[in-house]
Amino acid sequence: MQTAQRPRVLIIGGGFGGLETAKALAKAPVDITLVDKTNHHLFQPLLYQVATAGLAAPAIAAPTRSLFRHQANLTTLLAEVTNIDAAGKQVHLSDGSTLVFDHLVVAAGATHSYFGHDDWATHAPGLKTLEDAFEIRRRLLFAFESAEKEPDPEKRQDWLTLCVIGAGPTGVEMAGAFAEIARQTLVGEFRRINPHDARILLIEGGPRVLQAMPETLSAKALSQLQNLGVEVRLNAIVTAIDAQGLKVRGPAPAGVLGSVDYTIASKCVVWAAGVAASPLGANLAKNTGCQIDRAGRVVVSPDLSVPGYPHINVIGDLAAAFSHRPGKQPTAVPGVSPGAKQMGHLAAANVLKRIAGKATHAFRYADYGNLATIGHNSAVVDLSTPLGPLRFSNRLAWWFWLLAHVYFLIGFRNRLVVLMDWAMAYASFSRNARVVAGTLEKPEHVGES
Amino acid sequence: MQTAQRPRVLIIGGGFGGLETAKALAKAPVDITLVDKTNHHLFQPLLYQVATAGLAAPAIAAPTRSLFRHQANLTTLLAEVTNIDAAGKQVHLSDGSTLVFDHLVVAAGATHSYFGHDDWATHAPGLKTLEDAFEIRRRLLFAFESAEKEPDPEKRQDWLTLCVIGAGPTGVEMAGAFAEIARQTLVGEFRRINPHDARILLIEGGPRVLQAMPETLSAKALSQLQNLGVEVRLNAIVTAIDAQGLKVRGPAPAGVLGSVDYTIASKCVVWAAGVAASPLGANLAKNTGCQIDRAGRVVVSPDLSVPGYPHINVIGDLAAAFSHRPGKQPTAVPGVSPGAKQMGHLAAANVLKRIAGKATHAFRYADYGNLATIGHNSAVVDLSTPLGPLRFSNRLAWWFWLLAHVYFLIGFRNRLVVLMDWAMAYASFSRNARVVAGTLEKPEHVGES
Repeated sequence: MQTAQRPRVLIIGGGFGGLETAKALAKAPVDITLVDKTNHHLFQPLLYQVATAGLAAPAIAAPTRSLFRHQANLTTLLAEVTNIDAAGKQVHLSDGSTLVFDHLVVAAGATHSYFGHDDWATHAPGLKTLEDAFEIRRRLLFAFESAEKEPDPEKRQDWLTLCVIGAGPTGVEMAGAFAEIARQTLVGEFRRINPHDARILLIEGGPRVLQAMPETLSAKALSQLQNLGVEVRLNAIVTAIDAQGLKVRGPAPAGVLGSVDYTIASKCVVWAAGVAASPLGANLAKNTGCQIDRAGRVVVSPDLSVPGYPHINVIGDLAAAFSHRPGKQPTAVPGVSPGAKQMGHLAAANVLKRIAGKATHAFRYADYGNLATIGHNSAVVDLSTPLGPLRFSNRLAWWFWLLAHVYFLIGFRNRLVVLMDWAMAYASFSRNARVVAGTLEKPEHVGES
Repeated sequence: MQTAQRPRVLIIGGGFGGLETAKALAKAPVDITLVDKTNHHLFQPLLYQVATAGLAAPAIAAPTRSLFRHQANLTTLLAEVTNIDAAGKQVHLSDGSTLVFDHLVVAAGATHSYFGHDDWATHAPGLKTLEDAFEIRRRLLFAFESAEKEPDPEKRQDWLTLCVIGAGPTGVEMAGAFAEIARQTLVGEFRRINPHDARILLIEGGPRVLQAMPETLSAKALSQLQNLGVEVRLNAIVTAIDAQGLKVRGPAPAGVLGSVDYTIASKCVVWAAGVAASPLGANLAKNTGCQIDRAGRVVVSPDLSVPGYPHINVIGDLAAAFSHRPGKQPTAVPGVSPGAKQMGHLAAANVLKRIAGKATHAFRYADYGNLATIGHNSAVVDLSTPLGPLRFSNRLAWWFWLLAHVYFLIGFRNRLVVLMDWAMAYASFSRNARVVAGTLEKPEHVGES
């Protein structure tokens, strides 16, 4: 068989980085195996919409296998990699079998980090997978259901206090969606409570929301959140989370110096504060001696390979990568999907360079800007153009955000479904996926912990 | 408060029966509480489409609360009823609280029955809830994924042997969908297996498929199934199910008298063979002394009330009800959604009769016929018309089935999404919901058992 002699390229992870690597190798004379522990590629920028009942899961997830149906040089496998034997050029899978490779691209992504407080996971789920999204949807919708049943006014308010920890793009989007659900979607549907009484708190340790954005846009986003009725607490550090709510250390009231500790009683808390790289980062560090940073990301060479292991590349959220431009200081690459895609593209090109015995290229990140949505008609956009930055907010920004996200959604059908769902939601403030498979007593999902 | 003096009507269950009761009382001077243990009304006739990855869950499920947003005399509660105190006119909920009523309509439906073999549930999930559908979807899709990874040809074939037990409408629809997935949807997506090699077996204890249908249509359905590549085993009794597959007692080969025992190695088995009424049937029997039949259904009075308890009505799949026509023998009402809806309508009317001190009406079932689909362009329809039965099959029947189901789907948005999903699936044989939230190692759902 001719194919048996072709170089074997193994890609771990079917996110933005892994997918781009695989696509870029579509016509190359290599045999690719793409391994992922789920059966789908997830369009993570819209995952918060699944969590907040705006979209059904299949609208933002496509079967990986189906995406590569026509790419004959690629085999998709549903499997979990537990160990990378860098010297032996093989990986071990959780079912005990192994896969050999000539070139490896590790694109295993990231998960949430509780900064050493893993027990918080039970009380404050994060948002990385579809399972996470279903769990948050369940907690959010069942909080209102439980409030409707609760005769004690104080306990009722605990159900109606919704907390989001972390004001990055995901936290801001979730807090905005929570506010719209309470203020618009659910209005008129309850007989004993008024969903409008729900408090939505967005708790951020830093001095502003959306810290990756310019200060002017952070300020815009803050006022848009406040217009939606979100209480934003800045410089507020969460010090404990349990089934009753949070403990927070935040600024003292105006006129008083220092900080104060206080508690927030809440039955629905969502974690959007920290990310940690996949455990495969630590595994690579153990097996290759490479460095990992505080978030567990692999410090890669300029060409995205693991130092001393040119046949192993690390990309996407698992890589602590730098952008290299001639005559300029290297700059850190942010953990966003365009970064992962661009790294995937370069990793594929460099694999082919190595096979051809040529020199590899250093990674250069093209930054097209940054955008985040807050709610109906509210968003902030910070574009990098050749003529300088272009910044705008409010309605135009929202439409820009919407079209950009729908454009980048993978697969024709998904785009259409998302557009249609949103067209109707836009007109009516309704949310079309307010469905929880489990019951109050028998949650549908196994917990994260 | 004036409303406090109005009669309190409690409805248990938000299926077809409960929903119809509630809607029929929309303008009545009563206070209605509708209790359901899930947050959604489920359009069960299309649940097999969620299980076979054709539709996303929200396309066939609508939040119950949302459906009654504008019905001011109705309060929706997410809760599970554990006991009906018939004499005390109250029900107990699983959270320890109680709800009082003046009139009760019990529409708690049915679940699957394993005929005393509850241990089979782990190996052969049934299809009644969204959780069930997700579990079947997971097993079905992961069977092909596991086959792709399996090097041993014999074990690979065990993954590719898909069994459906019971050839009623649900079993026939599922077997047909399984066959289309193997023969059409997945073609070209695997590199090591050929999905076409999958065997789909439909195992039925009786002498024909779709026994509620006329024999001619059963024969049509059988040949449509066989055209799709489904192996149908009639008069075949399942005697055991475990993780390796089934034991079956079926007819001996042609020319040999008697029956033979054989095993079918299979890693994906679905149960569509038996239904049992909700445990609230047995609870009512204990508390009121009423009769229940073998399936646990309450034997109701002609007006659908519990004998001796005129303020308690039982409808839908939980009722062993008869249709009463002047001058004719009472006939049993089949467990289908039109029956449940018609009972709901009468129960509402009879509640108002009782409040007004008038005589109640006996139930009369209007039978409009029966339909089932087998696959792409294949269905059988048996309509009751004033001019006599109208029976047809194949392509026209399929379109009739499709339009009837979409028409009866609740809510504008759902209809449109379903139509659109099907339009695309029809053209391409693709399935748009091939997404499983869990991984192989960490299933997303808690098992049924």
